[in-house]
Amino acid sequence: MKNTFGSSVAVTIFGESHGEYIGAVIDGLAPGIEIDHEYIAHMLNLRRPAGRISTPRQEKDEYRIVSGAWENRTTGSPLTILIPNESVKSGDYSQMKTVARPSHADYTAQCKYHGYQDFRGGGHFSGRITAALVAAGAVCRNALEKKGILMGTHVKKCGGISDRELMDLQDDIKALNEKSFAVLCEEAGEKMRGAILAAQETGDSVGGVLETVVLGMPAGVGEPWFDTLEGMLSHMMFSIPAVKGIEFGAGFAISDMRGSEANDPVYIENGKAVTKTNNNGGINGGISNGMPIMFRTAVKPTPTIFKPQNTIDFKDMTEVTLEPKGRHDPAIVHRAGIVQTAATAIVLCDALAMRFGTDWLK
Amino acid sequence: MKNTFGSSVAVTIFGESHGEYIGAVIDGLAPGIEIDHEYIAHMLNLRRPAGRISTPRQEKDEYRIVSGAWENRTTGSPLTILIPNESVKSGDYSQMKTVARPSHADYTAQCKYHGYQDFRGGGHFSGRITAALVAAGAVCRNALEKKGILMGTHVKKCGGISDRELMDLQDDIKALNEKSFAVLCEEAGEKMRGAILAAQETGDSVGGVLETVVLGMPAGVGEPWFDTLEGMLSHMMFSIPAVKGIEFGAGFAISDMRGSEANDPVYIENGKAVTKTNNNGGINGGISNGMPIMFRTAVKPTPTIFKPQNTIDFKDMTEVTLEPKGRHDPAIVHRAGIVQTAATAIVLCDALAMRFGTDWLK
Amino acid sequence: MKNTFGSSVAVTIFGESHGEYIGAVIDGLAPGIEIDHEYIAHMLNLRRPAGRISTPRQEKDEYRIVSGAWENRTTGSPLTILIPNESVKSGDYSQMKTVARPSHADYTAQCKYHGYQDFRGGGHFSGRITAALVAAGAVCRNALEKKGILMGTHVKKCGGISDRELMDLQDDIKALNEKSFAVLCEEAGEKMRGAILAAQETGDSVGGVLETVVLGMPAGVGEPWFDTLEGMLSHMMFSIPAVKGIEFGAGFAISDMRGSEANDPVYIENGKAVTKTNNNGGINGGISNGMPIMFRTAVKPTPTIFKPQNTIDFKDMTEVTLEPKGRHDPAIVHRAGIVQTAATAIVLCDALAMRFGTDWLK
Amino acid sequence: MKNTFGSSVAVTIFGESHGEYIGAVIDGLAPGIEIDHEYIAHMLNLRRPAGRISTPRQEKDEYRIVSGAWENRTTGSPLTILIPNESVKSGDYSQMKTVARPSHADYTAQCKYHGYQDFRGGGHFSGRITAALVAAGAVCRNALEKKGILMGTHVKKCGGISDRELMDLQDDIKALNEKSFAVLCEEAGEKMRGAILAAQETGDSVGGVLETVVLGMPAGVGEPWFDTLEGMLSHMMFSIPAVKGIEFGAGFAISDMRGSEANDPVYIENGKAVTKTNNNGGINGGISNGMPIMFRTAVKPTPTIFKPQNTIDFKDMTEVTLEPKGRHDPAIVHRAGIVQTAATAIVLCDALAMRFGTDWLK
Repeated sequence: MKNTFGSSVAVTIFGESHGEYIGAVIDGLAPGIEIDHEYIAHMLNLRRPAGRISTPRQEKDEYRIVSGAWENRTTGSPLTILIPNESVKSGDYSQMKTVARPSHADYTAQCKYHGYQDFRGGGHFSGRITAALVAAGAVCRNALEKKGILMGTHVKKCGGISDRELMDLQDDIKALNEKSFAVLCEEAGEKMRGAILAAQETGDSVGGVLETVVLGMPAGVGEPWFDTLEGMLSHMMFSIPAVKGIEFGAGFAISDMRGSEANDPVYIENGKAVTKTNNNGGINGGISNGMPIMFRTAVKPTPTIFKPQNTIDFKDMTEVTLEPKGRHDPAIVHRAGIVQTAATAIVLCDALAMRFGTDWLK
Repeated sequence: MKNTFGSSVAVTIFGESHGEYIGAVIDGLAPGIEIDHEYIAHMLNLRRPAGRISTPRQEKDEYRIVSGAWENRTTGSPLTILIPNESVKSGDYSQMKTVARPSHADYTAQCKYHGYQDFRGGGHFSGRITAALVAAGAVCRNALEKKGILMGTHVKKCGGISDRELMDLQDDIKALNEKSFAVLCEEAGEKMRGAILAAQETGDSVGGVLETVVLGMPAGVGEPWFDTLEGMLSHMMFSIPAVKGIEFGAGFAISDMRGSEANDPVYIENGKAVTKTNNNGGINGGISNGMPIMFRTAVKPTPTIFKPQNTIDFKDMTEVTLEPKGRHDPAIVHRAGIVQTAATAIVLCDALAMRFGTDWLK
Repeated sequence: MKNTFGSSVAVTIFGESHGEYIGAVIDGLAPGIEIDHEYIAHMLNLRRPAGRISTPRQEKDEYRIVSGAWENRTTGSPLTILIPNESVKSGDYSQMKTVARPSHADYTAQCKYHGYQDFRGGGHFSGRITAALVAAGAVCRNALEKKGILMGTHVKKCGGISDRELMDLQDDIKALNEKSFAVLCEEAGEKMRGAILAAQETGDSVGGVLETVVLGMPAGVGEPWFDTLEGMLSHMMFSIPAVKGIEFGAGFAISDMRGSEANDPVYIENGKAVTKTNNNGGINGGISNGMPIMFRTAVKPTPTIFKPQNTIDFKDMTEVTLEPKGRHDPAIVHRAGIVQTAATAIVLCDALAMRFGTDWLK
Repeated sequence: MKNTFGSSVAVTIFGESHGEYIGAVIDGLAPGIEIDHEYIAHMLNLRRPAGRISTPRQEKDEYRIVSGAWENRTTGSPLTILIPNESVKSGDYSQMKTVARPSHADYTAQCKYHGYQDFRGGGHFSGRITAALVAAGAVCRNALEKKGILMGTHVKKCGGISDRELMDLQDDIKALNEKSFAVLCEEAGEKMRGAILAAQETGDSVGGVLETVVLGMPAGVGEPWFDTLEGMLSHMMFSIPAVKGIEFGAGFAISDMRGSEANDPVYIENGKAVTKTNNNGGINGGISNGMPIMFRTAVKPTPTIFKPQNTIDFKDMTEVTLEPKGRHDPAIVHRAGIVQTAATAIVLCDALAMRFGTDWLK
């Protein structure tokens, strides 16, 4: 389905970095869900570039909901969000028209779109498009919160610096939702920003790891084949530009454990099944088990750097040296966090509506 | 779509461990693809348990193609593969009816299916079902090979022992395809088997990492949103029981790199764009770039172990101690390798048919 | 999705007339639905050819459910039904290999499958495949009946003879479900059979009209765009071989009415909204209104006739005269009725599960 | 998929009659398709109300393409069309808030959306939304024309008056594409308009029949199950408000024919298979045969009439008498014609891209 994801609740995304609008259509939302504009604006703000560690491009992200809502509630019809592109400086990108920036999508776009792609600012591949995903996800997340399903994402690692572990999940989620550089330990965050600036000074960039946690997910949601919760979440997460890996629970570390270490012992707490450890990240056999859903993604360093690089000009398939100019982030991992939270909300809304019917979220 | 994956080429999977048949329907295959029965049987053999390190359950996997093929070629209609379940000892599983094996899907199945699930041998969650995926994938893979697209999977790590790196990809793939314990370095393989046996002796189990490589994938296949090649492959791979993580190219390691290290420099070789490194695993912006597609999955240790474990009986939600009996694998990572290869073939057939039309594979 | 229909409840169909099995996979059924084998066998019997007016091909339709059911209840996993092909006389069809029977799919199959299609007995295009649809639909219909949703189909017209109108819907549905030649007025049925025999004597065939009614459908199911109940039902019905038209409620006759005649006045009966007329066939704006769903399909005369016909041999694209031989029905409209009922049940299960969640049917 | 239709080329529709925008996203279009704004504007003009026989609501339909196109060509990314709603008089509809207009979707919307639906002007059910479908279809149709696939729709019947038969298809299509009241015989058109005005004078409305023809469709497109060309076209057409029936080729009339009359004899013309008659409407076994695709839809009379009608107030489920006021069409069949043509173009683009790959339309 390409630019549409989900079946019971489906989101369609559109737009290019330098087009008139980016946006999203969310279809299948229950009627009667409250639209909290402050909430949406807050989530968009968390994604916006800020300070010296981000691109100087500043967009107000003044989204508008142009269908599917009336008197601040969803109607049950497709909800369409538009975000205008305002701060467009196309001139900056003229040099790159046929020179492929290494590890960007320039060359693959050429192979797929034969020169018709809107290459300005990354076009449809731009991280800018994630603003639409954040806005759509904000509507979903807000609805989930009212059903007691809470979620948040922190920068688990950035530029080699690690944040502290998640501890009291409810409090940690609450705290993260107020931060545009979402770390649990401010000292670690300070060091991360230092690492980003240090990379920036040399014209370089850094990557990181994002960790998402979901509380309150009902048990019994997801499928054994093929729509496992892991499968659906991962399918979505790889749309976040720069994500190159995803792991649930203990993730890759589990591959070094023995069964007796990896298995999560079960016990009863307040009449409910809970596990002592959560090496499975809240999912067994593709289905939620009622424990927190936990996953981490690997975010690569921003591929645009200000160092000379060997690459090709695909106009005539010749080798060239590239030294990019323009507005770029020395790191995007901190900005991708809120995108990951929003994208998670979209996937969970779909899985829950499939399981419990279209009215469940109401 | 639950048990159906793909849109241009779609596979539907069905069956339970102790039912009459497991099987798969592949829909959308080009007409005229040769059916190589020796090839399919060989791939099924690679998945079969063998020797002391695997479950003593022995199935002949005598698959039959009961529709969609005629005179050893695909007709273009849905191709249905049936594999009978022969070696069924249901008696072994009677104890577990309501006692949830930790880190298995017993409890989540109960939450989803309310006691109607066929729990015998894991039912629809059983690794046995992957035989159907392997058979379906064998048809796809065989067709891809005739188009010059080769693939293979090795046990990158098992029980803490690492295989050697992939080197000459064509040769390595060829070698792997003859091995039921698919490692590049036989010495490492011997150590891995030792580690598995050592775990088995203590009633324990081990996990590992699988690495898949695809050669010859045309550039320009995949989508920026949401059907990235990474997203589609990961969606599928999490259906392989025990997979808890996936990473492409450098994967999680890329999150510690700087952009100047992570970026893959491009140059021209025989008129074709190639990259010096392959930290992006052959995919940029969700689209194949013509380089080898490379990814690794984290496979958790088999959750069934022969040690006492704390868990619950969900019949009355009480805490109990479980010590399972039956036929089980002390490791499945080596058997999951061929499943991963087959599953990869299915995903790529879908992506290629979407891109180039239904006749492309012919 | 080609051979898969539906999203919340999806059916995948496979098989060829002269293959080993035809069958269907139903995915998404609630767990715990009772499997009534007598019921399924009865519905398959109603589809089977009988007496002089049908093909002499006799199949016992000994279906087996090989996955997704356990102890006579659905498990919630894909339910697979296999029906073996037993009475296969492939020799009869050798002549037709490259001679296109007019108004059959021979030539279009050639254009699509390039000669690889299994042409024996119509292959994947054969009416025989509808047996799988009937079996799958029987499971769905049986489940719907337990929720108070009843349905039936009668031969509204055949060979120019009309059946009487539907009157007491509950009684009429009950009566129809016992008849292999499903008419409300036996006298009309006798005349229809006479018309079929008269056509047969001259080597000719007749068509007819089928009318389906559904009672007890909850109001509020269906979508305004694009998954209207009419759209989903029609999408499915055109898979029944020979169907060339469908109309809901007053159908084409409504196009000659004025609004004041066509509008269905609403009143209250036992606290429920009902309409005096049902010119809209129980659907407004694509959504069920609680009134009976009513539609009719146009079934063309069996294209295989025993008269010489001008056609082409597509082997060398030459004009030839064809006089077919083999086992054929001089009419199929009476056999297609139960297929239409079964197909309706499948579509409604999907729409209801989408609306009310996967457990609703339990 | 609700408001999304298609898989290789998919269209998502959104908007309400009195919202800020209506619009559509077309995903999967080949890159490089020319955007002919004059062509799109012309098609939107053909749909617009005109003269005394239409609603006085006048919209300029000033559409904008806000993504997916650059320098007047498609980029291959989702193409988004926005059409602002300008002429909104919400006050007119206040009376109808809970009084169900007979044969409208008011009551079914209430059952589905529980009072949260935007009822103003019909909301998401409004015929106004078809403007977005027309704009999206215009892009598709324009692309198809460049591949030699031409199409058109005429008012076959309206208010009991019939248009002449289609004769020279190429010329007829050309002529129809210039007419906002698309009839082949102007005299018949004059009488139809007379019938509409006569109905209007008594506060009543009329319906009609639309006939669509497609020339140049390649043979071999469509599926036997379930995505027959008839099934896909019908699925879409029932989204056009007021359509209650569809028939292909001879349609319902074929049910009264004998096989010897109904079968289309085949012969060779310029090395190509053609049929003497076209009772099958260009489709056999669900697949195009290279002949013109022909189908007719039944359009019911506009349900809003200016006569007193018995209905209910669903606020308290009481019976009331309704005499609507507002802006309404005494007939919509003539305006629905261009919608039907556009919708046809969308379906065919999807079927062709599925068959021949995403680049085919370029």
